[in-house]
Amino acid sequence: MAKTVQVVFQPSGRRGEIEAGKSVLEAARALGVGIEAACGGARVCGKCRVIIEEGRFEKLNLTSAADHVSPVGEAEQKFLTASELARGYRLACNAFLTGDLVVTVPEESRSAKQVILEKGRERHIELRPAVKNYTLTLPSASLTDFRDDRRRLLDTLERETGLRDLAVDYPVLKELPRVLRAESWRVTATVWQDREVIRVTPGERPTSLGIAVDIGTTTLAAFLCDLTTGAVLAKASRMNPQIGYGEDVLARISYAASETDGREKLQASIIGALDALAAEMTKQSGFRPEDVDEMVLVYNTAMHHLALGLDPRYVGRAPFAPAASAPLDIKARDLGLHINPAGNVHSLPVEAGFVGADNMAVLLAEEPYKGDAMKLIIDIGTNGEIDLGNRARLLSTSCATGPALEGAQIAFGMRAAPGAIERVKIDPMTYEPRYKVIGQDDWYPLVYEWHPTVQKIGAQGICGSGIIDAIAAMAKAGVISKAGRINAKLETPRVRRGESGKLEYVLAWGKETAIGKDIVITQADVRAVQLAKAALYVGARYLMERYGVDHVDEVILAGAFGSYIDKESAMAIGMFPDCDLAHVHAVGNAAGDGARIALLDVEKRREAATVARAVEFIETAVEPDFQQKFMEAIAIPHAKDTFPHLG
Amino acid sequence: MAKTVQVVFQPSGRRGEIEAGKSVLEAARALGVGIEAACGGARVCGKCRVIIEEGRFEKLNLTSAADHVSPVGEAEQKFLTASELARGYRLACNAFLTGDLVVTVPEESRSAKQVILEKGRERHIELRPAVKNYTLTLPSASLTDFRDDRRRLLDTLERETGLRDLAVDYPVLKELPRVLRAESWRVTATVWQDREVIRVTPGERPTSLGIAVDIGTTTLAAFLCDLTTGAVLAKASRMNPQIGYGEDVLARISYAASETDGREKLQASIIGALDALAAEMTKQSGFRPEDVDEMVLVYNTAMHHLALGLDPRYVGRAPFAPAASAPLDIKARDLGLHINPAGNVHSLPVEAGFVGADNMAVLLAEEPYKGDAMKLIIDIGTNGEIDLGNRARLLSTSCATGPALEGAQIAFGMRAAPGAIERVKIDPMTYEPRYKVIGQDDWYPLVYEWHPTVQKIGAQGICGSGIIDAIAAMAKAGVISKAGRINAKLETPRVRRGESGKLEYVLAWGKETAIGKDIVITQADVRAVQLAKAALYVGARYLMERYGVDHVDEVILAGAFGSYIDKESAMAIGMFPDCDLAHVHAVGNAAGDGARIALLDVEKRREAATVARAVEFIETAVEPDFQQKFMEAIAIPHAKDTFPHLG
Repeated sequence: MAKTVQVVFQPSGRRGEIEAGKSVLEAARALGVGIEAACGGARVCGKCRVIIEEGRFEKLNLTSAADHVSPVGEAEQKFLTASELARGYRLACNAFLTGDLVVTVPEESRSAKQVILEKGRERHIELRPAVKNYTLTLPSASLTDFRDDRRRLLDTLERETGLRDLAVDYPVLKELPRVLRAESWRVTATVWQDREVIRVTPGERPTSLGIAVDIGTTTLAAFLCDLTTGAVLAKASRMNPQIGYGEDVLARISYAASETDGREKLQASIIGALDALAAEMTKQSGFRPEDVDEMVLVYNTAMHHLALGLDPRYVGRAPFAPAASAPLDIKARDLGLHINPAGNVHSLPVEAGFVGADNMAVLLAEEPYKGDAMKLIIDIGTNGEIDLGNRARLLSTSCATGPALEGAQIAFGMRAAPGAIERVKIDPMTYEPRYKVIGQDDWYPLVYEWHPTVQKIGAQGICGSGIIDAIAAMAKAGVISKAGRINAKLETPRVRRGESGKLEYVLAWGKETAIGKDIVITQADVRAVQLAKAALYVGARYLMERYGVDHVDEVILAGAFGSYIDKESAMAIGMFPDCDLAHVHAVGNAAGDGARIALLDVEKRREAATVARAVEFIETAVEPDFQQKFMEAIAIPHAKDTFPHLG
Repeated sequence: MAKTVQVVFQPSGRRGEIEAGKSVLEAARALGVGIEAACGGARVCGKCRVIIEEGRFEKLNLTSAADHVSPVGEAEQKFLTASELARGYRLACNAFLTGDLVVTVPEESRSAKQVILEKGRERHIELRPAVKNYTLTLPSASLTDFRDDRRRLLDTLERETGLRDLAVDYPVLKELPRVLRAESWRVTATVWQDREVIRVTPGERPTSLGIAVDIGTTTLAAFLCDLTTGAVLAKASRMNPQIGYGEDVLARISYAASETDGREKLQASIIGALDALAAEMTKQSGFRPEDVDEMVLVYNTAMHHLALGLDPRYVGRAPFAPAASAPLDIKARDLGLHINPAGNVHSLPVEAGFVGADNMAVLLAEEPYKGDAMKLIIDIGTNGEIDLGNRARLLSTSCATGPALEGAQIAFGMRAAPGAIERVKIDPMTYEPRYKVIGQDDWYPLVYEWHPTVQKIGAQGICGSGIIDAIAAMAKAGVISKAGRINAKLETPRVRRGESGKLEYVLAWGKETAIGKDIVITQADVRAVQLAKAALYVGARYLMERYGVDHVDEVILAGAFGSYIDKESAMAIGMFPDCDLAHVHAVGNAAGDGARIALLDVEKRREAATVARAVEFIETAVEPDFQQKFMEAIAIPHAKDTFPHLG
């Protein structure tokens, strides 16, 4: 047997036995400790900083922790300063266990709980669920009526409901004899899609439960619904636990493809999270997870593969062909989900390689195909998904925006969690900023007070909406040029050259932050946002060109991100073509709403299958003038296009 | 944690850690040691005799084994003599572990490997398997053809074969991307029932495998077939491992209903045996178990429930309603079988409570419904199943024969294994017997030699065919009367009063046997056979009466037992109504043949479903004159009916 060592993580206190030779990052994953690892352990992002502690682990009588971990490697020399190394800092991905160890995960490296928007707009949903209960009284078995239990049930169901030729799923069959007789042949049969009996309960069963989940690359948002009334009984959300294997989907696909059991581990982590969400929500409502009869999942195509355990290698490379794009119904027991084992897990259809079932859910929620208005829908995430059209025609594309608009790959970027700067304004005379931090009600500094604001939560970094606000404000105040260059000649200490000699703008001084460091927007950060917003803009423009329109009637900004975004800032940096701001709407998690709609209304699933076939997918990266158009869109707001509605 | 003790079984040498407090019988089951337990551990049969050994287990330095086992109980006082108790004999069901122990299982208590008849008669089988291979070349994915892998496969399948709207089973979907690309988009798709893709293999796949199994109460007989040629690649058989939980189905049903996880344990033991059979046969033929794409199972209704894990309580009591009687297809992975996880396990339909899928298989093999001849089919087992009819009409019944005709519940009864007396003749002048033992070529004693025959294998007991021969011979020689009473007045030492004072006939003297005891036929044994044969006879007569015929054209004796039986002896004791012996056939394991037919010819499954609905099931026990008829049939051969063909 392999040698194991004991590892304790601080401040969580999680501990366990880990095989010697594993990295600290692997140990953290095994023990459920969240460490940021944007590159998925490829040793290129430098985010997974941890501190190896000396002598704290009393039981072990450690004298020098250095004897219990591999020597400092090349990647660490690059990302950590000499002073940090002296204080015990290491990269979790590059420090390998040789003995027992106590490891502190500093705040900056922790995967924080994100603020997730569960509250979409109120929508009208028809209640036509796939799962229905029928309470029946069967004739009892006798020497003159010795039909088998299955036939007796199906005959009564047919007589009472007209449903014929139903299947009875195997787990139901196993318990049928006991269940039918438990309350003198009175039972409730739960039927899925008018074609399969997925549960039989003794006596009456008034309620039937379903769960809809929006599986984002970063977050999971779930709704527990009563399928007999349509009511949302509970909501819950949590981080996508696959983040421990890489922040973006490509890092995870690479992990799945190259690590032993990588695919199985990634799937198991999502299934575990879905089970936990089901347990949390059912407990809140006085039910058990086994009471849940159906689950509807929406996700992008990569998460679709990673959650269902489908070989994901080819969705990550051209021509991005998914394993399956049709709507799928997979038995909960085949996925290892601990809801009703005979229950089904429904996936909305995938449209194309990078336009996933989550976009299909957004379309179900927004229904652009039902009206005459020319709607532009932008679902902002690590991958941007864009739809344009109306009842006549519907176009769709996706673009690799990268994680900049979610606050990742930004010097002080972080997710939309407490401590994140989410709003920024800059005075065009003094170039002094004011900002607002998630978790704190007031702006900093408060302008009507002379003494400094008491900050309950100091700033720790900048989230996506803060970045967009900051870039818009910097452009408006002249801190950056139309081309996005920081103006070195401004007379303010806020603009300076950083350690690397590159220009940066100081948004918060170290003394006012929770991390004790200046929080800055670097030239590289500005560039990353320009690339991301240009990708969205060009995507939208290609769809308009392909459709043959030069303006849109309405813009919908969707995404868990969406309702925090300042729509004026977004248009000011040129994230989408000009539109009357009164007709720009941030709708929150439209994908989650669409999932819930599909859970409650089986007709919408059929609609989804039809729409998925009708949507024209436009692959923009292959267009010959893509580079030219992209370069023009990098300017703020745009090199040529005008924005009359910006005023 | 519970205390465990170490137990070693002799002579097999099997050993392991067992929880203290368990019985020796439970320990034997856990370690895979076969001990006869006809009553399933209910302490009423006294068969599970074992010897607790002293001081043999060197590592443990045992001084007195008595310190390691519970005191002798009431049941043991009843079944074991003082001398046996002194020698360390115990009943395995009643001796509980308190410390480490060495246990010897004497030959008489061992579950022996039975001689199983695999060689049915040659039958013409049409090759129309449910599983078919199609080798295809798919167009490769490109930026202009970015269909998903599933659609690409199904489109090509439709173009090449015309098969539409196929499902792709989930385990297949998971690996599809890799498999399609492994040999440049050339693949073999394995399709089940023209409706589901259950395997996709890179490149060509010439063979497809299936397994047919006849799951008897006592034995399993399996065939591995090449579904593309119909050839039988391998055969294998083994004991039904559920015997450790009780010899007859009622004992097992009771175990399943009353013990913790009883149903799961019984199912797991059968599934384990099926996996072992698949592993053994595929290895012989150079394949792996995962290469097997379908399995067809036939069994009686109780074994059907116990193998599929269906709640069996109600098939064991009136009105004997099964959980399901329709043909079933259950995914191998749902049963935990380690063949192709997407493969199906097909069960032939059950006709009624005690007339199972195995009788359906017998009907498929014998096809009485296709001719004009009035056929009587008797499938002899622990439950007798009887069919009568022709193309016009088909009747069926079952009767509780009990295990006497298989050699159980007989004083010296044993299964048809080496050492069993299988043929008996008795000289009507001297009342001296001659007998033949399984595993030995010659009769004993040889009449043309003066010196005693050298017996390679001494007799250990009597199997079913030996019992039938013995009763027939005893009747013919006048050792028993027509009423079945042993004649106390005969002048021969062979007829005597046993320990209980009841009459018995000595078939073999202790000196010539392997067990060192006289092997006798008791008055109770004669009675048990009379009851069994009367049940079969009355069943046949009721079917004839219901059909309205007073003779049959042909009698088929089926069952693993069937081809060993002496048809003249069987008719001589009145097991079935009179028939020309030239038209009485012992066909061997017709149920196994029927299972193989259903595996290779999907049309026969449809035929089975039709026949199952058409068969008229007759419940004979509810007939008002049943008792009267039964009493008449107890006489040898019958109180009233004549047998002109006996001569």
